[in-house]
Amino acid sequence: MTAPATSDKAIVLVSGGLDSTTTLAIAKEMGFECYALSFDYGQRHISELSAAKQVVAQYACLEHKIMQLDLTTIGGSALTDQTIAMPESLTDNIPVTYVPARNTLFLSYALAWAEVLVVNNIFIGVNAVDYSGYPDCRPEYIAAYEQLASLATKAGVEGVTFKIHTPLIDLTKAAIIQKGIALGVDYASTISCYQADSAGRACGVCDSCRYRKAGFEAAHLSDPTRYQS
Amino acid sequence: MTAPATSDKAIVLVSGGLDSTTTLAIAKEMGFECYALSFDYGQRHISELSAAKQVVAQYACLEHKIMQLDLTTIGGSALTDQTIAMPESLTDNIPVTYVPARNTLFLSYALAWAEVLVVNNIFIGVNAVDYSGYPDCRPEYIAAYEQLASLATKAGVEGVTFKIHTPLIDLTKAAIIQKGIALGVDYASTISCYQADSAGRACGVCDSCRYRKAGFEAAHLSDPTRYQS
Repeated sequence: MTAPATSDKAIVLVSGGLDSTTTLAIAKEMGFECYALSFDYGQRHISELSAAKQVVAQYACLEHKIMQLDLTTIGGSALTDQTIAMPESLTDNIPVTYVPARNTLFLSYALAWAEVLVVNNIFIGVNAVDYSGYPDCRPEYIAAYEQLASLATKAGVEGVTFKIHTPLIDLTKAAIIQKGIALGVDYASTISCYQADSAGRACGVCDSCRYRKAGFEAAHLSDPTRYQS
Repeated sequence: MTAPATSDKAIVLVSGGLDSTTTLAIAKEMGFECYALSFDYGQRHISELSAAKQVVAQYACLEHKIMQLDLTTIGGSALTDQTIAMPESLTDNIPVTYVPARNTLFLSYALAWAEVLVVNNIFIGVNAVDYSGYPDCRPEYIAAYEQLASLATKAGVEGVTFKIHTPLIDLTKAAIIQKGIALGVDYASTISCYQADSAGRACGVCDSCRYRKAGFEAAHLSDPTRYQS
């Protein structure tokens, strides 16, 4: 990969999970100095934020901002409403773990911060292969967001083009893990589980656990995830 | 105006200012039952939220949600960073009262709530005539957001089209006020000033005050605004 041409700084959305951690490793490999952005949004799996802090510390980011958003007041998802049961098997439909407009909100905070920092690169670890069918992980969504970003901002009016980098979007989970291992990612530090316990141990049965577990199996790599049982 | 065809409910962004209050009055006139959405985002003119509550009470909304957003941690605007001086004259450029990605964030919260409420109408009182040149008030921005909304959401995947209503977008400030007066809007309840004091009295010199004052003058209507001096 070559060094970035127009700017050497980027904002990377870091949840503390497998995908965003790999994305951060890729952004660093590409030569970007990185600002990390995480969200405390009332998610059930709050322990992912501890993982995010650990990951960011490993990658010498310029700053780590954790925005407070109370999405529990909006609800509508098993991740933000504890009364909605966590599904324990995959379905053909978009599952109840979908959080309404979550990536749109996350990217909008990133866009606001990018404008203030005078940065036009944003990395997000969305994936449209081994994923739960979330609409805001698809390439057409990302393209629409890039278009919006230029129209939405003072920077855009002044000619800045925002680039939303999605280095994982067309990779299988196994390929993501292989890529991360090649870059030295310590997956033991990451938490993917939607209902990890306070010690960071995964349930093994939620959507996110299933994709992660299958990814390690397909990559023929040992899974460092700590499970609850 | 005719009653809405596909849905009789809408989310209306209500800041407590002149434009959003007129927008709420128009949405009600169109026959929509309204959910009001306001934002406590660390704005300097926090007294506008008291005005928003008063306005919403006048219009019998189904619910009034006030989301907490801490945009002061992002800054970059005279509205969210007290160390940036408030401009007291109009300029040809986008002024420092522009808040990075603010309408994108506001619309994204509205979109999230709309999806949970199963509502596809969102009203926002943006205006691209007597305004400060904010990029996220222009018709092309709104069109891009509508396109994004369908791609971003589970509802969109299922065929729902989100409509962002902008009834004021091509009106002069005077025409907005005349429209509001015709609908019985009590402008004495509204606060437009970017640095209103805790009693809700306006400074008379910020961008927002200047546009409001000129609007009442051009409409040949008495200005009920309470000024600090």
